[in-house]
Amino acid sequence: MTVFDEFGSDFTLNQPALLHQVRIVLVQTSHPGNLGAVARAMKVMGLSDLVLVEPKCAIDDEARARASGAVDVLDSARILDSLDAALADTVLAAACTSRRRDLPHSAFTPRQAAPDMLSMAQQGKVAVVFGSETFGLSNEQLMKCRWLLNIPTNPEYASLNLGSAVQVLAYELRCSLADAILPLPQFEAATHAAQESLLGEMEKVLVEIDFLDPANPKRLMPRLRRFFARAGLEKEEVAIWRGILNAARKPR
Amino acid sequence: MTVFDEFGSDFTLNQPALLHQVRIVLVQTSHPGNLGAVARAMKVMGLSDLVLVEPKCAIDDEARARASGAVDVLDSARILDSLDAALADTVLAAACTSRRRDLPHSAFTPRQAAPDMLSMAQQGKVAVVFGSETFGLSNEQLMKCRWLLNIPTNPEYASLNLGSAVQVLAYELRCSLADAILPLPQFEAATHAAQESLLGEMEKVLVEIDFLDPANPKRLMPRLRRFFARAGLEKEEVAIWRGILNAARKPR
Repeated sequence: MTVFDEFGSDFTLNQPALLHQVRIVLVQTSHPGNLGAVARAMKVMGLSDLVLVEPKCAIDDEARARASGAVDVLDSARILDSLDAALADTVLAAACTSRRRDLPHSAFTPRQAAPDMLSMAQQGKVAVVFGSETFGLSNEQLMKCRWLLNIPTNPEYASLNLGSAVQVLAYELRCSLADAILPLPQFEAATHAAQESLLGEMEKVLVEIDFLDPANPKRLMPRLRRFFARAGLEKEEVAIWRGILNAARKPR
Repeated sequence: MTVFDEFGSDFTLNQPALLHQVRIVLVQTSHPGNLGAVARAMKVMGLSDLVLVEPKCAIDDEARARASGAVDVLDSARILDSLDAALADTVLAAACTSRRRDLPHSAFTPRQAAPDMLSMAQQGKVAVVFGSETFGLSNEQLMKCRWLLNIPTNPEYASLNLGSAVQVLAYELRCSLADAILPLPQFEAATHAAQESLLGEMEKVLVEIDFLDPANPKRLMPRLRRFFARAGLEKEEVAIWRGILNAARKPR
């Protein structure tokens, strides 16, 4: 389904291209390893736009090592000297924070916010802002963002690593692209008739080998039926089970 | 609300305590930093049970630094020498993998699987298994798990860091806690050890009754494993199948 919004964009819904409209903004990051981890977390979910505001460390060998195959995201990161500059062309900015404020903006979980963020991304750039490892975001920085995002965590230990926080955000955005089920290899299901015939045969063999007493069958066959129903018998498996039954009944 | 199931468990629904029933199993991990990242990813979402199978590195200073405030999870991690030992007391094992197989088990996204995993966790330990950074999990290791979990990723760069993969899984489990009522499983699941023992016995009997040729086993046992994995073996059914095997092998 293609949606044309009021500004004439023509992003196809569920298109990975939307993820390139989401910008990750890191403010005053101090650990190079985290820069690399963020780049990898982004690329693995399909994001590419990284902005560093006043970074407190360089993009060094450690950053590149942690970025692994996502060095391109690091290399194309822009370094800016203010949060305003990083957000200037965005249509929505959300701040990721674990803290509660006395004057909170609208606060959402990533799961709540992701669909609307992608919806906005059809109009323009959407930013998610992450503070420094030690100090987070200042009140002034938070006030520049429209939404707050709170990632659910263990209240007894809520110290989410910066790279992990970006990973969770990026994952939620990707999941929101495609709520559909993963395509699975298809196997041919056995027909009802084939399964009935197999279970009839199985009952006969179980009597022959003295496991099932026809005078006192208890609930054996219903239990086996239930087991087969849960598994969902496939066509090829009927042949396997028939072979096993034939082998079991052979006199030795 | 506290629910007492027929076996006397008394987990309170939606209780974070359920997360302690989920075991993270790392197979042949090679980077100490990842051990630390995994410990932190677990604790920040409320998980605590970490098992290392044949680790290829030590829990060293780098591991502790990356664990940050989750060093306690690292310190209480158990080191075991086989995947079977790590799974022995579990009632459900799911393998996290990015690969597709020619004979796949049921595959789910973490989002699809998390509610059922927590539901099973009311009965006993539930394991999520992660392979080594370089080689992932072998087919043999995958076959020991009932479900496959595929984290949605960018098809052009699907290289999710080990710590990030655990982070996403743990996050999904925590988010699923908040979902409404978990349906209680109606029957008691068989343990991994009981299922392995049954399948071992089945293989022996199939040889004895001349259905399985040990010199040319083809893909019979993997097919049967897959079938049992789909069904989800219950404790009482182990006894039924053992009875059937005994009856089948008896000379007549």
